[in-house]
Amino acid sequence: MQFPSRMLEQLVNQLSKFPGIGKKTALRMALYLLKQPDNEVREMGQVISTLKETIQYCRECGNVSDNTICEICADHRRDHTTLCIVEDLRDVIAIENTGQYTGIYHVLGGVIAPADGIGPDDLNMNNLPERIAKNGVKEIVMALNATVEGDTTVFYLGKKLRDTGVRISTLSKGISVGGELEYADELTLGRSITNRIPYQA
Amino acid sequence: MQFPSRMLEQLVNQLSKFPGIGKKTALRMALYLLKQPDNEVREMGQVISTLKETIQYCRECGNVSDNTICEICADHRRDHTTLCIVEDLRDVIAIENTGQYTGIYHVLGGVIAPADGIGPDDLNMNNLPERIAKNGVKEIVMALNATVEGDTTVFYLGKKLRDTGVRISTLSKGISVGGELEYADELTLGRSITNRIPYQA
Repeated sequence: MQFPSRMLEQLVNQLSKFPGIGKKTALRMALYLLKQPDNEVREMGQVISTLKETIQYCRECGNVSDNTICEICADHRRDHTTLCIVEDLRDVIAIENTGQYTGIYHVLGGVIAPADGIGPDDLNMNNLPERIAKNGVKEIVMALNATVEGDTTVFYLGKKLRDTGVRISTLSKGISVGGELEYADELTLGRSITNRIPYQA
Repeated sequence: MQFPSRMLEQLVNQLSKFPGIGKKTALRMALYLLKQPDNEVREMGQVISTLKETIQYCRECGNVSDNTICEICADHRRDHTTLCIVEDLRDVIAIENTGQYTGIYHVLGGVIAPADGIGPDDLNMNNLPERIAKNGVKEIVMALNATVEGDTTVFYLGKKLRDTGVRISTLSKGISVGGELEYADELTLGRSITNRIPYQA
């Protein structure tokens, strides 16, 4: 793509770094910015420029937070003896939206992915044994994506935390609520038959 | 969506202003930024902050440019007697990529869209008669999108420029090169039959 301006090219190159954003979409985004009022564009730029300096992470769970301890970890009405291990804050938001979980979280900030060069030391899991002891955690819920990397991380953490004696559970796998059997993939359907549960009338 | 941090919420709100970017994609983009090195994020923010102050528009054609006159308008090897009217710089890039056009451009910066409150006065067309006279333009190519707004703009410009006596042409419409008839829409196929051209063996 041949750009009429170096400045524009630089902007498009910056925007196309985002995941899932190609050069064409980036150009569309750049043109949108050009049509916006000066102060709005400047404000967006400033939010991004100062992002890394102003953003904080909860000292306890590793989630993004405005304070040193996040709202969830600071909430004493929540069950601090149940700890849910997730990959990132999107998963925290998704689980919070269900309204079905009242425990606390631990945000790893990723999963073990040898292909991408991400090992256990790159993740936020060093203070896990300490947190478990401090909160008197009785159950750990592994809420990681059902991918190879997610399963690898569950396996690693399972071995690491075996000696703590804490009960470890994972999310149940099966057909979607409201889903039709014929559209479920074979692995999922197979798993939901193997792990069938007693019918409660 | 409930955010764990005000700062993050602000960023997601900013990013979801982009066309075609929803809250979920914006959150994905925000998480991507959080994982990037500080200096890269700061650089992206600065490019956006200073965008509106540093970007320039060609005094002649209205295209984005690094100088007061853009490279195309300043290029004396190009045919300045053929003027191609386009909506925005994406169209300039698209036509330049074909390598089939050697004339100059005129970038309107939009099309007449009464539904969006955009009239002729909001577009870059006031200096058109002056440009036509100055360059001794012999042909105007209307290269606007084949939409209602595009056609309206062509109609408006056609009436406005009729008195200049300059030859006006539009892009030919028809089936795509390499396209299959059965997948062409009825309007396009109908138009390409009506406007059929002599076969040159």
